[in-house]
Parts: sequence; structure tokens; C-alpha cells
Amino acid sequence: MNIDREAVKDTEAVAAAAVTVIGLGSMGSALAAALLDRGHPTTVWNRSPHKAGPLVERGARLASSPGEAVAASALTVVCVLDYESLYAVLDPADGSLAGKVLVNLTSGSPRQAHEAVAWARSHGADYLDGAIMTTPPGVGSAEMMFLYSGSETVFAAHRPTLSALGDPLYLGADPGLASLYDAALLGLMWSTMTGWLHGTALVTAEKTEATAFTPVAIRWLTAVAGFLTTYAPQVDAGHYPGDDATIDVQLAAVDHLIHAAESRGIDNSLPELLKSAMSQARSAGHGADSYASVIEVLRNPAGSAK
Amino acid sequence: MNIDREAVKDTEAVAAAAVTVIGLGSMGSALAAALLDRGHPTTVWNRSPHKAGPLVERGARLASSPGEAVAASALTVVCVLDYESLYAVLDPADGSLAGKVLVNLTSGSPRQAHEAVAWARSHGADYLDGAIMTTPPGVGSAEMMFLYSGSETVFAAHRPTLSALGDPLYLGADPGLASLYDAALLGLMWSTMTGWLHGTALVTAEKTEATAFTPVAIRWLTAVAGFLTTYAPQVDAGHYPGDDATIDVQLAAVDHLIHAAESRGIDNSLPELLKSAMSQARSAGHGADSYASVIEVLRNPAGSAK
Ligand SMILES: NC(=O)c1ccc[n+]([C@@H]2O[C@H](COP(=O)([O-])OP(=O)(O)OC[C@H]3O[C@@H](n4cnc5c(N)ncnc54)[C@H](OP(=O)(O)O)[C@@H]3O)[C@@H](O)[C@H]2O)c1
Ligand SMILES: NC(=O)c1ccc[n+]([C@@H]2O[C@H](COP(=O)([O-])OP(=O)(O)OC[C@H]3O[C@@H](n4cnc5c(N)ncnc54)[C@H](OP(=O)(O)O)[C@@H]3O)[C@@H](O)[C@H]2O)c1
Repeated sequence: MNIDREAVKDTEAVAAAAVTVIGLGSMGSALAAALLDRGHPTTVWNRSPHKAGPLVERGARLASSPGEAVAASALTVVCVLDYESLYAVLDPADGSLAGKVLVNLTSGSPRQAHEAVAWARSHGADYLDGAIMTTPPGVGSAEMMFLYSGSETVFAAHRPTLSALGDPLYLGADPGLASLYDAALLGLMWSTMTGWLHGTALVTAEKTEATAFTPVAIRWLTAVAGFLTTYAPQVDAGHYPGDDATIDVQLAAVDHLIHAAESRGIDNSLPELLKSAMSQARSAGHGADSYASVIEVLRNPAGSAK
Repeated sequence: MNIDREAVKDTEAVAAAAVTVIGLGSMGSALAAALLDRGHPTTVWNRSPHKAGPLVERGARLASSPGEAVAASALTVVCVLDYESLYAVLDPADGSLAGKVLVNLTSGSPRQAHEAVAWARSHGADYLDGAIMTTPPGVGSAEMMFLYSGSETVFAAHRPTLSALGDPLYLGADPGLASLYDAALLGLMWSTMTGWLHGTALVTAEKTEATAFTPVAIRWLTAVAGFLTTYAPQVDAGHYPGDDATIDVQLAAVDHLIHAAESRGIDNSLPELLKSAMSQARSAGHGADSYASVIEVLRNPAGSAK
């Protein structure tokens, strides 16, 4: 077959839809750069205009107002600090919103996502809520997840463009789902990173380097991921057979962590909290059950005990 | 080439060294089973002898006392609940220990490992401390890590046998290192599992199943592992550039998690602790730094602040 490379290139260029990016902090700049990399005609706007400099050098068009930015493309991606900033930027631009699609990648709560859908609808715009599950250096990689919720039709229509940013996962029509997953996954991230930092503080107190411990920790996380896969159906079933490792056995081990950290002057509030969760699970009758039974403690906080 | 399969098999059988396993709880039984699977002549002993039944059916020899068990093989693997149980079992058997090698896979503290080396030496035995980084179903898989510390010569001599249990990693001559890594990695595991359970409590409150959320959580952990790889050299350098994501930006996001959990009646002590760690890092001047700077807070607990 004879393929005309120039013609293919032209087709690709034509196929890459125009996009506007509002908010050029670390994340917004990475989003705009990924769109430019894939050949999307990209219009940008930021409160502090100097941040647009590097993007304009790479071919972005700098709009002089949020209204002009929204008007320039059918699709506008917004990524600012929080919802307060989002309304501060977009309220003055509401006259340009009719018939447009807003994809909001600003972090927020499920409630804020619901409010934003209503606000966008009142100005005649479609709205998709999203969450970015990577840091700026990961933007543009197909390995990184971008979560979306809201209208499936809108998602399907813009999926090709959103694929420039990362791997788009559609969670459902409830616009709050992306924020809910985001909160849940960030909580997992902070827990994991703090657990890793605590362990790192422990081993570096004995002249091991963080860079020596971390590959072992990461390999261990692969095994831990296997435990989560075992425990997920236990959670759905509300039944936590402890045939691999029981709460009782883990309670015996947690004191070693606490003593090892204490004798090295390391803060123990995280291990103490974990021990307390396990102790509560044991008190609730889960001593011979798996660690998954700790979810019963989280769902029934001490204060609201039956 | 003409290979005599029977001859090869015979050679393998001869090569598989005799091993004794003391302690046949969930974990000890899995260890003995893995050794039998690889053709090691295996002698077993357990306080409650009935637990040896399934292993004896598979070819294990049940010793009538710990002393007889230790005498049966050059190498004895011990895996009981804790060090108290270990001494309860082995003190009466100390006459059989001279010239033997003890590999202790019972969980304990670095101090307990140091004490056990001295105890073993006083009875003429070599001693290697170990930690099992998997649950019983993972025993025997080359993907699972078994950590060892103590004499490198002893480790090297028995590495082929220890490989039947999992992938043996030698950490160094300090016998406390395996326990120290074990404590650090278990802390990471409990942190990760509790963060996952908290997130699971959040999304299952909105009719998402744990089995739907968990694959997303596991994929996210791969991205989180990437962050740890970025942050490990920052920890070693004591310098935490926040060019990917700052403590300030994460503090803005943690409240969404806390509110989302609170409005669904879910315990918030873990997210509150994480928020407090981030706030302390900000107060210590790390607001524009990466999350890795939280290690400064862990290393300098509030009580012992300068
Ligand atoms: N960084 C990450 O790794 C990451 C990952 C996932 C999600 N996110 C989310 O992405 C969003 C942006 O994060 P970032 O890292 O890009 O933060 P950042 O670098 O601090 O950028 C913040 C952005 O918000 C704008 N902004 C702040 N207050 C404003 C106001 N009152 N009016 C108008 N604009 C305002 C800033 O404009 P100026 O330039 O004029 O200050 C800037 O464009 C946040 O919701 C964050 O949670 C970030
Ligand atoms: N399960 C896991 O996933 C896992 C993972 C890594 C490490 N470990 C460690 O492996 C060790 C064993 O755990 P496991 O899960 O096998 O626990 P387990 O099923 O509860 O078994 C405990 C073992 O210790 C023995 N034992 C307890 N008290 C004793 C005493 N006073 N005298 C003599 N023997 C005594 C028990 O004998 P009886 O049968 O007579 O009661 C049994 O053989 C622990 O240190 C644990 O932390 C376990």
C-alpha cells in the first residue's frame, strides 16, 4: 500500500480538536502542553498571564480574558486551585458558555461537582467532572488515569481529545463520582506515602538509605495489592475469613513496629492509630478474621457505636 | 543430547537438603508444604501435633519432640507466634543445637533478633533471622520476598534451600535488619490497607462495589509507587522540591476527603492524622515542598520539637 505521509499528517492535524485550557499552574500547564504535543490548537488563559509564556512559545494562543478563552473552542478544560477560583474566573465569562462543553479537572468534593453541573446548565453549557490521578510529569502518558463522571454522551464525544491527557476512565452519570473516587484514592495515596515515610524514617535511622529501602517497599506493594484483591470480595460479602493472616497475629506484630520506632525517636501516631483500629476490630469479634474486617470499625466510628 | 530423566530426578532429590520445620500454624504449615513440594526431606514438629496430619500425608516426618526435630536436619526453620513461644519450644531442645543452623522466621523486634543470635551462639548454633513478606498462600512463589539478616556465609550456604520458600533477599550482617525492614514494611502494609479500606468505605456508601473500586485503587498504587521513586532521593538529600505537587495543594484537597467521609458517617481519624502531618510540615516551612518533607515531622515528633 502506498501511504501519503503528508496526507495522513494533515488528517491527524484536522482531527485534533481545538481546546481551551484555563488555569496554568503546574497542572494546567502540563495539560496544555500535552494537548499541544498531540497537535490540538490550544487557547490558554491564566490569572497571572506570564505563566502562559512557555506554552505560547510552543504554539498556544493566549486569550485576553476568560470569556475570549471559552469562546475560542467547543471544549474548555479548567484546572485551577479550587471551586472558589473556578467561579472567580468563569462567572464573568458566563455569557460565552452557551453551547460549550466544560471539563472541570479542579479538585473538589462530590457536592461541589453537583453544584457546578447546575451552574453550567443554567448558562447553557454541558459539564463533565474529572479528577487527575497523576502529578504534572505524568500528564500525557497513557498509563495515567483521568477519572470522569457526568453525561456519558458528552464523555464519548470528547474522549479522543481527553485521551491526549492520559487514560480516560468513565465512572458513571453521577457527576460526583470522579470527586468521590479522587478523595478515596488520594486518601490511599497519603496513607501509603506516610506509611512509606514512617518506614523510611525507621530504616534510615540504621544507616540504610531511602533509595535502598524504596525498591523493596515498592516490590512489597505488589504483594499488598494481591492482598487487596483477596479482600475486596470479602468486603462486598461482609464476611472476612482470616485463613491467610488474622487480626490477632497482626496485633502481635504491630507492637514491634511501635517499639522499634519509639526507641529511634520517631513519631508513632500512625502506627498507634493502626493498632487502635485493629484492637477495635478484635473487640468487635474479628480477632480471627482478616484485616478486611477493619472496614467495620471505619463504618461504625466509636462515637456512633450501636 | 540424551538426557536420562530418571538420573536428573535422582540428582535433584539428592540435592534437596533435609530441613526441619518447627511451628505448624498457618505459616509454618505453608513453609513445610513448600519444602515438600521441592523434594526436601522434611521433619516437622508442632505443640499441637494434629496440625502435622496433612503434612505427614504428603511425606513429612513428625518428630516426637523439638530436640528430635532439631537433631534430624542440619537446618531448622522456626515459625511460631512470637519469641516467647520460640524459647518455650527450643529451650528444652538446646542440647541438640550444637553445629546446627537455626533460621528464625518468627516475627519480632530487632532487639529480639540480637538476643536470639547470642542465645543460639551460646548453644553452638548458627543463626539467621528472617521475615516473611507474604501470607501463607504466597509461600513457595519466587515473586514473594523473604528477608534475611545475619551471617552472610550462613545465608549463602543455605540460599538454595531457602529459595524453596520464596525469593531470599539478604539485607546485611546486622541480625536486626530483617526485623527492622519487616516492621517498616508491615507499617506500610497496614497504612495502605487502612487507606484502601477507608476509600472503599467511601465509595461503597454510594453503591459502588469494593470489587469495582479495587482494580482502580491497585492501578493508582502503581502511580503512587512512581511518586515514592521520585521522593526517595529527596529524602536522602534532605531537600524536597515541590515541583510536582506541593503540601499546600494537598492540604487544600484533604478537606474534601474529610468532608466526604464525615457526611457518609465514616470514621475520619486516619485522614485527620494525615492532615495534621501535612499541617505540621507546612508550619515547619514545607508548604511549597513535596509530600516527602513530611518525614521531617515524623523524625521530630511534636513532643520532642527543637
Ligand atoms: N499538582 C498535582 O500533582 C495535582 C494532581 C491532581 C490534581 N491537581 C489539582 O489541580 C488543581 C491545580 O493544581 P496545581 O498543582 O496546578 O496548583 P498551582 O500550581 O498552585 O496552580 C493553581 C492555579 O489556580 C489559579 N488560581 C488560584 N487562585 C485563583 C483565583 N482566586 N482566581 C483565579 N485563579 C486562581 C492559579 O493562578 P495564578 O497562576 O494566577 O496563581 C493557578 O493557575 C488543584 O485543584 C489540584 O488539587 C493537582
Ligand atoms: N500469617 C501470615 O500471613 C504471616 C505473615 C508473615 C509472618 N507471619 C509470622 O509467622 C508467625 C506464625 O504466624 P501464623 O500465621 O502461622 O500464626 P498461627 O497460625 O496462629 O500459628 C501460631 C504457631 O505458634 C505456635 N505457638 C503459639 N504459642 C506457642 C507456645 N506458647 N508454645 C509453642 N508453640 C506456640 C502454635 O502452636 P499450636 O498450633 O500448638 O497453637 C502455632 O504453631 C508469627 O510470628 C507471624 O507474625 C505470619
